[in-house]
Amino acid sequence: MSGLEVLRSFREQAIETHAPIAVVNWTNEEGARFTPGLGASTVWAGVASVDDVLACKTHDDNASLTMGDELARIGYIGTTPATCDEFPLSAHFEIHNEQNTELERAGKSVGWAPAWQGIAGYEAVLEGEDGHATTYAMERRQDALVGASRLTVAAEDMARELRGFATATKIRSGPWGFCNIQSKVALSWLIGHREQASFDKLCIGFEDAAHDVAGKYRLKLDLKKTVDLPVGRFTKEAVDCAANGVGDLGVAITCMSGHDSLMTMLKAPTAMLFVRSKGGYSHSPKEWSEKQDCADGALALGRTVLHYDDYLRRR
Amino acid sequence: MSGLEVLRSFREQAIETHAPIAVVNWTNEEGARFTPGLGASTVWAGVASVDDVLACKTHDDNASLTMGDELARIGYIGTTPATCDEFPLSAHFEIHNEQNTELERAGKSVGWAPAWQGIAGYEAVLEGEDGHATTYAMERRQDALVGASRLTVAAEDMARELRGFATATKIRSGPWGFCNIQSKVALSWLIGHREQASFDKLCIGFEDAAHDVAGKYRLKLDLKKTVDLPVGRFTKEAVDCAANGVGDLGVAITCMSGHDSLMTMLKAPTAMLFVRSKGGYSHSPKEWSEKQDCADGALALGRTVLHYDDYLRRR
Repeated sequence: MSGLEVLRSFREQAIETHAPIAVVNWTNEEGARFTPGLGASTVWAGVASVDDVLACKTHDDNASLTMGDELARIGYIGTTPATCDEFPLSAHFEIHNEQNTELERAGKSVGWAPAWQGIAGYEAVLEGEDGHATTYAMERRQDALVGASRLTVAAEDMARELRGFATATKIRSGPWGFCNIQSKVALSWLIGHREQASFDKLCIGFEDAAHDVAGKYRLKLDLKKTVDLPVGRFTKEAVDCAANGVGDLGVAITCMSGHDSLMTMLKAPTAMLFVRSKGGYSHSPKEWSEKQDCADGALALGRTVLHYDDYLRRR
Repeated sequence: MSGLEVLRSFREQAIETHAPIAVVNWTNEEGARFTPGLGASTVWAGVASVDDVLACKTHDDNASLTMGDELARIGYIGTTPATCDEFPLSAHFEIHNEQNTELERAGKSVGWAPAWQGIAGYEAVLEGEDGHATTYAMERRQDALVGASRLTVAAEDMARELRGFATATKIRSGPWGFCNIQSKVALSWLIGHREQASFDKLCIGFEDAAHDVAGKYRLKLDLKKTVDLPVGRFTKEAVDCAANGVGDLGVAITCMSGHDSLMTMLKAPTAMLFVRSKGGYSHSPKEWSEKQDCADGALALGRTVLHYDDYLRRR
């Protein structure tokens, strides 16, 4: 929405830019229903094909539904060329709600991000042995749910100790029944840290803990790293424009999640702005940013774009 | 099957009993698909109505399917009167595979059970707050899956320390998504112990741990005790007959799970026999009892019934 407000404001003020401006509404950034996220921007960056993204599956284990099916159902399959070669951008600026409380604590409405934290995604399948929950001796068991629980606890403990993030985002367990030891558990985790050394330590610690738990409970472990994004910095020229655009309204913060800008970074100068989130709530009905903060964000975004347009003109 | 073998053998040997003998195949003892278990025997014992049991739901979260629907679909809804008043039994003897390794370790093919362990069932729903998995500060979170994992680990640790059982038998977690803190988790546990004092300690310890975890992570806890079966003893006269029936073939062991005999106990003298399980595997494709062990079990069951028949005749 901020992007459209910026365009409307430029028009009202009769501002003419050196470079043309496009507003992009990337599909499935958050991966709320279809996995993986960052769908449309992965196509633009050449990381995935249109067919790959349309074939994305839902999280609800409904294996027959794809993002392509559901977009077709609501009439949202477009025909506009979607790769960076067909639709080039000279720079990309994204504004997002913060989803954390750094801005709230700083008493500022807007932030700009010079860098992003490292993010790793893991999927594990732990397989043990079936058995009866109240008859089979505890010391003989290969209980996959106990293994999964210990790994989730270990990940949380390590993340708190190293001041990073480690969160189990999904668990599926079986077999169904009233009195069965759970012999097969599938889990996903996301891990994050602002500093590369600690990020590496957290990832290695998590992988070690997974193997330890599997060894202790004699579980077959299938561990996949599905996301591996090292700590990184947005484009200096774009970040400078964002810092100037935000000015006194805000402070520099770290980008904490995998936004579309991490894809555009692969092909074009990129920077990100963030708007203060009330209480840090996000992916929640409580998600909220005050109207004035959104207006500040749109103002900062507009100024940022004009600074960059100026940079392009002078270059 | 053993019951039918016993009847066939009596017929071949022209054995005439004082009391008539019925073979009962109780529906849904294990609760493998429909919950709770012990369906038909709860109706016989007057603990539940036929309608209650036919309304049992599946474990697979398919809320529209009931046991009644599925029995009707395969033509297994019977019309025979099913309560103990309509279909009285003067005694009930049940034979079951052991599902543990006591008999294997004793080198015996058959066991009889003077007593059962206490069994408790718990269902918990833990509710925290939605949030983004890699942006929202760890120390502000109300992560229901971390709470559930810590409780599962605590239950396992307590059970091992007290030499009892505590097993998480089901977990469901949400919301779906790629990067969501899990804010709502539903779990079930079964807890068991052979000694009443330790059983009480384990149940109280589990409930305390549930409240501790909920407090620590600021989770709303809805904890229900769905099964509450104290340690108990089968009918002395019936157990004596079972011990005589087994004789040198076996040893006394403890009944470790909620069998139909715990329902018949409420209305009629009852005892149980067990047949050695290979490796203790049960509720598993590896479940196996050797043919000779099954034959020994049928022999012991037949002798047990004849001893009890003799007891009824003399009384």
